[in-house]
Amino acid sequence: MHPLDPLTPAEIAAAAKIIKSINTDKNIHFKNITLIEPPKEQLKKFLAAERNGTTAPLPPRRVSSLYYHRGTADLFHTTVDMDLGKVEGTEQLNSRYFGQADMDEAIEVREKCLSHPQVIERIRNYGLPESFVVVCDTWPYGRDSAEMGRRLSQCYLYAKDGSHPGANAYDHPLPFSPVIDYVTKELVTIIELPVGADHSVTPDFKYIPHKSKEWHHDLHSEPPRTDLKPLTVHQPQGASFTVDGHLVNWQKWRFRVGFNWREGMVLHDVTYAGRQLFHRLSLSEMFVPYGDPRTPYSRKSVFDVGDIGAGVAANNLALGCDCLGLIKYFSFTLSNSNGEPVEKPNAICMHEIDDGIGWKHTDGATRQVSIVRSRVLVLQTIITVGNYEYIFMWHFDQAAALHYRIQATGILSTVPIAPGVQVPWGTNVNDGVMAPYHQHVFSLRIDPALDGDKNSFVEEDSIPMPFDENNPVGVGYITEKRTMATSGYSEAQPNRVHKIINPSIINRVTGRPIGYAIHSPVKQMLLAHPQSWHGKRAKYALQPYWVTSHRDNELYAAGDYTYQSLPEEDAPVGSVTPGRGDVATWAGRQDKVDNEDIVLWHSISLTHNPRPEDYPVMPCETMTVSLKPSGFFEQNPALDVPQSTQGINKSILYEQYQQTAAKTSPGNAAGCCTPKL
Amino acid sequence: MHPLDPLTPAEIAAAAKIIKSINTDKNIHFKNITLIEPPKEQLKKFLAAERNGTTAPLPPRRVSSLYYHRGTADLFHTTVDMDLGKVEGTEQLNSRYFGQADMDEAIEVREKCLSHPQVIERIRNYGLPESFVVVCDTWPYGRDSAEMGRRLSQCYLYAKDGSHPGANAYDHPLPFSPVIDYVTKELVTIIELPVGADHSVTPDFKYIPHKSKEWHHDLHSEPPRTDLKPLTVHQPQGASFTVDGHLVNWQKWRFRVGFNWREGMVLHDVTYAGRQLFHRLSLSEMFVPYGDPRTPYSRKSVFDVGDIGAGVAANNLALGCDCLGLIKYFSFTLSNSNGEPVEKPNAICMHEIDDGIGWKHTDGATRQVSIVRSRVLVLQTIITVGNYEYIFMWHFDQAAALHYRIQATGILSTVPIAPGVQVPWGTNVNDGVMAPYHQHVFSLRIDPALDGDKNSFVEEDSIPMPFDENNPVGVGYITEKRTMATSGYSEAQPNRVHKIINPSIINRVTGRPIGYAIHSPVKQMLLAHPQSWHGKRAKYALQPYWVTSHRDNELYAAGDYTYQSLPEEDAPVGSVTPGRGDVATWAGRQDKVDNEDIVLWHSISLTHNPRPEDYPVMPCETMTVSLKPSGFFEQNPALDVPQSTQGINKSILYEQYQQTAAKTSPGNAAGCCTPKL
Repeated sequence: MHPLDPLTPAEIAAAAKIIKSINTDKNIHFKNITLIEPPKEQLKKFLAAERNGTTAPLPPRRVSSLYYHRGTADLFHTTVDMDLGKVEGTEQLNSRYFGQADMDEAIEVREKCLSHPQVIERIRNYGLPESFVVVCDTWPYGRDSAEMGRRLSQCYLYAKDGSHPGANAYDHPLPFSPVIDYVTKELVTIIELPVGADHSVTPDFKYIPHKSKEWHHDLHSEPPRTDLKPLTVHQPQGASFTVDGHLVNWQKWRFRVGFNWREGMVLHDVTYAGRQLFHRLSLSEMFVPYGDPRTPYSRKSVFDVGDIGAGVAANNLALGCDCLGLIKYFSFTLSNSNGEPVEKPNAICMHEIDDGIGWKHTDGATRQVSIVRSRVLVLQTIITVGNYEYIFMWHFDQAAALHYRIQATGILSTVPIAPGVQVPWGTNVNDGVMAPYHQHVFSLRIDPALDGDKNSFVEEDSIPMPFDENNPVGVGYITEKRTMATSGYSEAQPNRVHKIINPSIINRVTGRPIGYAIHSPVKQMLLAHPQSWHGKRAKYALQPYWVTSHRDNELYAAGDYTYQSLPEEDAPVGSVTPGRGDVATWAGRQDKVDNEDIVLWHSISLTHNPRPEDYPVMPCETMTVSLKPSGFFEQNPALDVPQSTQGINKSILYEQYQQTAAKTSPGNAAGCCTPKL
Repeated sequence: MHPLDPLTPAEIAAAAKIIKSINTDKNIHFKNITLIEPPKEQLKKFLAAERNGTTAPLPPRRVSSLYYHRGTADLFHTTVDMDLGKVEGTEQLNSRYFGQADMDEAIEVREKCLSHPQVIERIRNYGLPESFVVVCDTWPYGRDSAEMGRRLSQCYLYAKDGSHPGANAYDHPLPFSPVIDYVTKELVTIIELPVGADHSVTPDFKYIPHKSKEWHHDLHSEPPRTDLKPLTVHQPQGASFTVDGHLVNWQKWRFRVGFNWREGMVLHDVTYAGRQLFHRLSLSEMFVPYGDPRTPYSRKSVFDVGDIGAGVAANNLALGCDCLGLIKYFSFTLSNSNGEPVEKPNAICMHEIDDGIGWKHTDGATRQVSIVRSRVLVLQTIITVGNYEYIFMWHFDQAAALHYRIQATGILSTVPIAPGVQVPWGTNVNDGVMAPYHQHVFSLRIDPALDGDKNSFVEEDSIPMPFDENNPVGVGYITEKRTMATSGYSEAQPNRVHKIINPSIINRVTGRPIGYAIHSPVKQMLLAHPQSWHGKRAKYALQPYWVTSHRDNELYAAGDYTYQSLPEEDAPVGSVTPGRGDVATWAGRQDKVDNEDIVLWHSISLTHNPRPEDYPVMPCETMTVSLKPSGFFEQNPALDVPQSTQGINKSILYEQYQQTAAKTSPGNAAGCCTPKL
């Protein structure tokens, strides 16, 4: 077993047993059971030996678990030495920290909510049609004061016709929202939601029928288009990658695939042509704040990684639906609230795609041509968090660039709106249905290792030269580089490129340090006020680039415990644990980060002011961040890709097909993604 | 014949004959012979009738030609009525206008340059190896004063080993540059190029041998990688598109493909589901200014569309190399300097690609899934302009979005540099070879017709609400919209989306006008000083968005005549022709553009500070501009795409392939792109 291999079912069961053994008088509600990756100093030695074909001591296998004593607010964090089969230590957390919502608990809360007499009565008064059923989405409560002792769920209710399990509940948002206590399962209150253009509420607002907009294929009001012909991808000689456990080799790339409940897909020890590039790449956090200023929407927000878990929410990917071509799946195991193993089958798929032309040149005089196609290796995971789906992909290309691609799809989070009303912070997407403006801010954690761990972070600006004797006609421009000396953040500008460099290693050709650039569009960062709860709880979302010195256990941009998180500056005296905090805390240490083991945290922001075209299900909205060599190599690393040839690629002329192709019968069109009704 | 069909060989020959017939005493040097598209008012009626299945009068077929009296600087513009077979009118242009460089002329100048005794002597003194040959790239001279009466070529010289026609001349840039007069073919001067870090020159600088970096597959110093397995794309039931002449229908899209010497690929009359979207879409201009402040590099720049022609430079695309899958090619005809037809075979290819997931949702409670893949129709053209290649693509997606994708590849423009020297405006890419910083600024001309011609242009900003009683916790944000009233420009901001709307047509669902948004990254615009010649000749490159009222014949952002163009403000009194000028002139008219027939000119900027990884041939650098419906439709236009199924998509499990697939023998790997030596 490799130190970075995700936990096996047996390990999960063993860890749960060990933790239960020190809590024999308690019923344990497990929040998670997860691998503690070895301390970086140990891990580096192991990985270096592995890359060099030598050996190094196997670091101890350790596991952590967060859990409640069931039915209480007592939250514990225990670490287990799996080699020794015993607990290393247990900490009871300060009461200002809360565990994330887990599926078992959410299901229980939904049932409690919908079966509560007051909720039932309120639903009855609303006057839904007989055929309708009500469903409950358990949202994190968020935070509206520094004093919040209870862990709460804001239950947003939706109705749908009960005759089909795929009917679109988000098309019928109810104008009231119960709050449930996660510990006691008590109904705390039922909040009336505003349905007009201001903060006022209308408790006697009744259901108004409208024609539903449906996302499920069985329920579309129009038949599917009939003129889409099949397109299939073949690799007659198999895949170009090799897989050994969680180790992947492809086109000079070599890396390990990891997975955990929180970050989902993780990449470890990424190298190209034998040179180290990145020690660890992960989705550290994502925050989705809504821009509707009215209560309770002013709290509406979720840390999808910390509050729910990108691993927990990972889809079981289906051959031919989520993934086209020759597909390798990776499956993993997580745990439930009883500490039992839960399979996450096909949580990551890996395959190759053709991505157009890689490079081409034609000699102007001799008409000589060299051309290569661009082959890309895709690792994809898809998560469902309530209404939304997110597709996270790593695209490896042959020119040593690595692209993190995020796609948002699924269904907009909707709220009720009265007839004829428009609001300036949202878009009406159906009669009675409004989709508020919101943002998605992702934090991509990049632990670089460009030819080793000692790296620096550089802002490189393109600057016009002054109009003077050195620049007599006013067209000259140069680049100015600033190396970040101490931990902090960097702003994005249209004339700026951010780079990671290794200042000790000089590229022989350029005479400048080797580096990789981060190419990411300049985007609007968090629109919520920095002193709002959103701003204070998701400080990472205020700036696009943060740099910290590496410390073990600093993995999550908004902190370890995001659920109803309380910013350090608002925390009671004595409750601030040194070393906890968030990326702003760590960046604020003013650690030396020039020629050190650094971590770059890149906040990727999508301001999403919905369109009706995003409803009732949203065409993928795509964002891409590219990590591209910038003076890391001495020449084009894809120069050795073989020439593109028709002998290999076997394309077909349209006219040739029209004339001669035998008409084949349509394939079997039976669905493969949806359980049979 | 359709009024928008490109000229046929017979038409070109006929037009040349007519023009020669009014110049019987002269030898004509044709710069171009091209279709004059019908006046928009006539064309609109014709296209509307065509869309409605009725009839309207066929507009007259008209052709224009720009030509010199050979051996003189006398430049003429003639229009021909092809129906009547006679000249409509001829204008002799003011001597401040110059015709573009054409291939016939460039080849003649190259020969004159390289055979000139002074050039031969200067080359001899440089001391190249015996086996080397010298090649000449004829660059536009640019402009360095308001008084320039001669049309000049700046000849940059390169050397290469003569033993292989694919050897990389750009790896051996020579440190001197002849200037040739295009009319007289005289050598005007030989300019010594700086090779140090300042403006000084070193006329006795001698050739220093170095190991070449070679782009051609025959010449690579390392063998090609051997672990790339074939990947093929099949459409067993044929393509999903239909083609009727130049009319294409695909997945609710309908449009016409056009082509001319200057813009290359043009799209006309683009509709979706029968609704008008865009009247005309074209690459209006591109400008490549270099940031090296030293003479003559301070003039180094080219308008690749106006000075050369994207149609002229279009590649003959090869099946299986430039295009993968089931491919439809479009071929066209241009003309040479004698007015003879010249075939441009396979100048555009069209095919479908799978672009990942289109949309997906999983119901959280019932686990119902609907998922569709995203099929994209690609129209691609590739141009070679000297050292560089550009790939221009339109991507049509099923959700009614249209994406303009630009890729830059080919070879960096290089200059000589002395050993040990580094400059702040360039990157060394090999011993003795420096690639200066530069920009590529494209102008995408968008003539919108959202449900008709009367459209408006809107800046929509996401703005935080003030922290007050309407926004008590400081998280609210709204959008503020400003409609452009009179022609002008708009800046890009991270919090801004630009939209084209039809203010008269209200979306029933949103209550707001229908529109399309332009999504384009916020980029650094022209770095040259606005008062430099670059800034004044390419004013369009100073701002990302320009809006003008539509007028026939206003097609080119930097004006009709870009070669050595003289800005209007510097032109001699009496030489400014009303209605000529550039997009800044037209925007400066302060025409009403709200609810009018408008044109949007989008400047797309790539600041390219070369990497060694871009050499000796550059992996594609990609930029994408998306035109996406934004309240144009009442719901997701791709909702009716059929469910993705394994029955259709026929993917294969990696493990299944490994176990059972018959090992097929490798395909025929013979090259198809390069002429045999």
